[in-house]
Amino acid sequence: MSSPGEFELIARLTAGLEARPDVALGAGDDAALLRLGSEWLLAATVDAQVEGIHFVRGVATPKDIGHKALAVNLSDLAAMGAEPLWALVSLLLPADVSAAYLERVYGGMRALARDYGVAIVGGNIAATSGPLTLDVTALGRVERGVAVTRAGGRVGDMLLAVGTLGAAASGLLALVGDSDPAKQAQLAPDMLDNVRTALVAPTPLVATGRALALTGGIGAMLDVSDGLAADLAHLCAASGTGAVLDVAHIPVARAAAAVARAYGRDPLALALYGGEDYALLCAVRPAGLAAALEAARAGGDEAQVIGELTAPAEGLRLRQPDGRLEPLEPRGWDHLRTLGC
Amino acid sequence: MSSPGEFELIARLTAGLEARPDVALGAGDDAALLRLGSEWLLAATVDAQVEGIHFVRGVATPKDIGHKALAVNLSDLAAMGAEPLWALVSLLLPADVSAAYLERVYGGMRALARDYGVAIVGGNIAATSGPLTLDVTALGRVERGVAVTRAGGRVGDMLLAVGTLGAAASGLLALVGDSDPAKQAQLAPDMLDNVRTALVAPTPLVATGRALALTGGIGAMLDVSDGLAADLAHLCAASGTGAVLDVAHIPVARAAAAVARAYGRDPLALALYGGEDYALLCAVRPAGLAAALEAARAGGDEAQVIGELTAPAEGLRLRQPDGRLEPLEPRGWDHLRTLGC
Repeated sequence: MSSPGEFELIARLTAGLEARPDVALGAGDDAALLRLGSEWLLAATVDAQVEGIHFVRGVATPKDIGHKALAVNLSDLAAMGAEPLWALVSLLLPADVSAAYLERVYGGMRALARDYGVAIVGGNIAATSGPLTLDVTALGRVERGVAVTRAGGRVGDMLLAVGTLGAAASGLLALVGDSDPAKQAQLAPDMLDNVRTALVAPTPLVATGRALALTGGIGAMLDVSDGLAADLAHLCAASGTGAVLDVAHIPVARAAAAVARAYGRDPLALALYGGEDYALLCAVRPAGLAAALEAARAGGDEAQVIGELTAPAEGLRLRQPDGRLEPLEPRGWDHLRTLGC
Repeated sequence: MSSPGEFELIARLTAGLEARPDVALGAGDDAALLRLGSEWLLAATVDAQVEGIHFVRGVATPKDIGHKALAVNLSDLAAMGAEPLWALVSLLLPADVSAAYLERVYGGMRALARDYGVAIVGGNIAATSGPLTLDVTALGRVERGVAVTRAGGRVGDMLLAVGTLGAAASGLLALVGDSDPAKQAQLAPDMLDNVRTALVAPTPLVATGRALALTGGIGAMLDVSDGLAADLAHLCAASGTGAVLDVAHIPVARAAAAVARAYGRDPLALALYGGEDYALLCAVRPAGLAAALEAARAGGDEAQVIGELTAPAEGLRLRQPDGRLEPLEPRGWDHLRTLGC
C-alpha cells in the first residue's frame, strides 16, 4: 500500500543503488527476490530509529540519521557472526520533511551500505502525523556451524568486550542533555567530535563479529546497544549463567572519560549503563581466548577480557579493584528519560 | 536498541508463537536464523500500517489492525507466487496504547500467521510521540522458475482479475468518510459487514497467487493495493505495454455496488480508483488462460478476464460497453485525501 508520490520518490531514492549478483529482483516490485545457498542460515533483524527518541534533527545530520538506521541493524547481524547482504527500508514520513532532506538521509544509508557490500533491495514509504522514523530490516547469512547466539555461554567462559564503551552516552549527555558551552569548552574538540560520532554515526563491527564467530571459540555474543550491564544480563539470562565484571578492566572510551570529567559524572556509570555503543560482548571458551583476541585485534578493534561467566545463583556482580564483589544492577539505557521526552 | 520494558513486552507478546522446523532461532536474539534451500529465491517485503492514515482505532478493532498489518505483506508475497514463511514485526508505540490493547493487536496478527503457516521470528518495539504504527517485514520463498514479477507482461496477454474490487473503498466511504446513519440504514447489514471486513481485515490471496504462478502461464502479476487503474499502470510501466480494460467485465464487489447505490456514487469509480482490495491482477499468456482460470477457481476465488495488454503507444484505455475506447487515468488511492487528514 502506498501514499501518493511514493513511487516517484522511491524511484528517485533508489536510482543507482548498489546491486549484488544474488539480487534477482530489487526495489520496484511487490517483493525482492534473493538467492541463498543451502548451507547457509538467513539472519534477519529489524530496528527503528524514531526522531525525538533515537535521534534529534540538528544534532544528527540527515546523513548521520541514514547511516545510523542501517548501522544498528548491521551491528545486530555482526553479533550473530553473519555477513550482511540485503536491507529493506521502511520510512514514516511527516509532512515537514522535504525530498531533498530525505535524499541526504538515504545518502548516509547508501554510503554505509556500499562500505559493507549491502544491497538495499526494497522498502516502503508511508505518511505519518508523527515523527520521522526509519525502520530498517537487514538480512544476512551465516553458516550453520558458525552462527553465534546469546544463549551459548557457559560457566567459566571469559567475557570479552570488543570496542569501547560510554562514548555514545557521553555524546548524548554533552550534545543533547546538557549542551552548556562552558562545559563543552572544557573538552578538546576531538573529544567532542568522538562522542558526537559515537552517538550519531556508530560503526558496526561487522568484520570483527564475523571473524570472532569463525574462530569457533565464541560461546555467546551480542552487541552492546542497551548498555553493558543490561546486555550482560540478557546474555546471562539466555545462557543460564551469572557473571562477574572486573571494574578495572572495563574499556571506558577515552572521550567518555573526558566528558565525564567535564560534566562531573562517573565514567564507569556511562560505560556500564549508557547504551548505543555497538561494541560486541562475547562469552569466550578459555581455550579460544587467544584466537578471539587475535581476531578482534586483526580487525583493528580493542579487545579486553572484562570478567567471566559464573554459576547462575551468583547473579551479576562487579569485582572492585580491591577484589570486593558487589551486586551489579542490570539497568540500561532509557531513551525517554535521558532525552527528557 | 530498545526502549525500557521492551524485553518484557516482547517476551509477553511472543510467548507461544507458532514455530516452523526451518526457524533455527526465532524472536529473542539479535537476529533470527532461517534455513533456505539452494533452489529457492527468498521473497522479502515490508509495509507499514499507520494510525490515521491506514487505519482508525474504533473502526478497526485491535485484532483487525494486527490482521491487516500482516495481511498486506502476505498479499505482496502472493503476488510473486511465493510461499510465505516468516515475518518480522516492528511496532511504533505511543504512550496511550496499553499492553492489553497491543496483545489483542498481536492476537490478530498471530491468528493470521497461524492460518498461513507463517512464523513471526523477530521484531522491535520503539516508543514514538506519533501514531501507533505496525511495520511488518514478510519473507517467503519461491522457486526460481516460478516467481512472477510485474515486469513480464507482453502485448497480447490477457488481463485477469482474481477477487473483487471496490469493497475496501466502499468500507472507507461508509464507515469513515460519511458514516451518516440514514445512509447506512439503506444498506443490508451483511453488506456493511462485507465492506467493513474488506477495509479492516482483508484476505490475502496467498494460495491462489502461488497456484497461478505454478501454472507457468502468468507473465506478470501484482496485488491491487493502490487501485486497479494505478496498479495496472504499474504493471504496464514495468512490462513496457499499454492496456485496455473492459468496463463491462470489471468485477465490482456486490457490497461495493450496494454502498455506491446508498451513497450516490459510481460503483465503477470505487472499483477502478479505490485501493486496498488485495485482489490479484495478472497478465496471462493466451495459451495459459484456461489453467489460470482453473487455478483461481480451485482456490475459491472469482476470476474474470477484464482486458488485455496492448502496444505501449496505445497507453491505458477503458473499453465502454458500446465498444468506445476512452483514456484511463492512472490515478489511485489517496489515503490522506480520503481520510481528510
